[in-house]
Amino acid sequence: MPEAALAQATEATRATIGSSEFDRDTALTRRAPGVYDIDLSAGWTIISAVNGGYLLAVLGRALADALPHSDPFTVSAHYLTASQPGPAVVRTETVRTGRTLSTGQASLFQFDEQGHEVERIRVLASYGDLDTLPDDVRTTAEPPAIPPMEQCFGPEDGPAPVDGSSAITDRLMLKLDPSTLGWALGQPSGKGEMRAWFGLADGRDPDPLALLLAVDALPPTAFEMGLTGWVPTVELTVHVRCRPAPGPLRVAVTTRNLAGGFLEEDAEVWDTDDRLVAQSRQLARVRLT
Amino acid sequence: MPEAALAQATEATRATIGSSEFDRDTALTRRAPGVYDIDLSAGWTIISAVNGGYLLAVLGRALADALPHSDPFTVSAHYLTASQPGPAVVRTETVRTGRTLSTGQASLFQFDEQGHEVERIRVLASYGDLDTLPDDVRTTAEPPAIPPMEQCFGPEDGPAPVDGSSAITDRLMLKLDPSTLGWALGQPSGKGEMRAWFGLADGRDPDPLALLLAVDALPPTAFEMGLTGWVPTVELTVHVRCRPAPGPLRVAVTTRNLAGGFLEEDAEVWDTDDRLVAQSRQLARVRLT
Repeated sequence: MPEAALAQATEATRATIGSSEFDRDTALTRRAPGVYDIDLSAGWTIISAVNGGYLLAVLGRALADALPHSDPFTVSAHYLTASQPGPAVVRTETVRTGRTLSTGQASLFQFDEQGHEVERIRVLASYGDLDTLPDDVRTTAEPPAIPPMEQCFGPEDGPAPVDGSSAITDRLMLKLDPSTLGWALGQPSGKGEMRAWFGLADGRDPDPLALLLAVDALPPTAFEMGLTGWVPTVELTVHVRCRPAPGPLRVAVTTRNLAGGFLEEDAEVWDTDDRLVAQSRQLARVRLT
Repeated sequence: MPEAALAQATEATRATIGSSEFDRDTALTRRAPGVYDIDLSAGWTIISAVNGGYLLAVLGRALADALPHSDPFTVSAHYLTASQPGPAVVRTETVRTGRTLSTGQASLFQFDEQGHEVERIRVLASYGDLDTLPDDVRTTAEPPAIPPMEQCFGPEDGPAPVDGSSAITDRLMLKLDPSTLGWALGQPSGKGEMRAWFGLADGRDPDPLALLLAVDALPPTAFEMGLTGWVPTVELTVHVRCRPAPGPLRVAVTTRNLAGGFLEEDAEVWDTDDRLVAQSRQLARVRLT
């Protein structure tokens, strides 16, 4: 149900964790200890490039299998070359195993015309067990002020064109805060802000791997700053701080420093329990026009 | 001149980039291509552990030598085991070289009692050339409101005890904003904020490598949140956005989400030209008491 919003999915039609498009498209085949094959789905492309958050989830799933701990706590990814849909290999290395945290490394490779491996992304990550953390919360951060979902807009709510829309829009439930949608109407606000409700279109509830997708799923903040075009990620680090509660997530992305052809995008992800479940920051390149 | 503040250093006694304590203590000896020896100085310890920012600068310097680009743009470090003063080996790998950016990996190893290498830190980093970036700046971030340096306090300004003071305090010019110093008087503000003027005690001006030190040099924000004890870094990522102008830096560190025994520390570093020269975020463990 490509254009269905999460809110409209009934209990009967909702996908569950393990049975969704996202689970199918991040599934890996273990070829050898720590080495995995995957066919990168064309379903998660923006224009023709494979979405960086989807790739992060693929690498995150490989490390969850390879390491003794299964939840990503902090994942740092450096994006080297643009991934394409099709066959890929993930090679992992266990760097250190500890009682509460394990650290691993993973690289995703594809193949050039001569069949040589070309590295696409390399990540360093520390994993733990979110369910063993104490319940203490002393967050001073406030959930983002996003209007109710029915007042927000997605690609299916045209006529506003969502530039860069592509296959991935069918996989996501993305409802953008109208106050960060000026760019789609040719009237960017000039502020480096982007906010949205986020879910998977088939209704699958979020888990830590889906958070890796959520932090890189919104349109670039650069659009609201009046810039257009591709904003390739150089590096993205995400901290997963809590297992998300069921239901849609709220994602707020902020850019405060656009300078010298680079910008940072800071993302916060909040769940339906008003918990700050993930924080991320990426460094991206931008064409100053 | 261990206790001299940068402001008091005269031109005649100031160290220069290349001739300072910091340069001497981060100097590496190339043993083989991409492999470096170093004797980690005891001059940069907090209590008995070697400061994480100093270690980051050591790794950053190795990569600056090994990669075709010399300025760190984004460095992600995962801290594995606690480093001690003494011999260490840095092994680097060139992951990808491009026209404007190169990506490398580096690990710092020390030795256990049997002489086996133990990995202390692993970093992934992308390097470029800061001097080639366009001059465009569209920063909405504001420099932190830190009082003039003469109204701020360092360890030499006792009687306020600066817990955790150690050898590194002799190497740094660190003048803390009194409004984030309540913890030193037994009256933490409860806010996750720490702000300071930062420099090298011998008056050396900042450069990109010194920024790697600056982002992890202030007392933990946890102290102002009423917590005590060691706050070990799990992962720290820093973005260097601009070559800093000469003179002291202003560093502001903020924690918004203390939860489940972990917290993030977001640091901003500003130079004397009011440029946001570096941003960092670390995930650290904290004992909830």
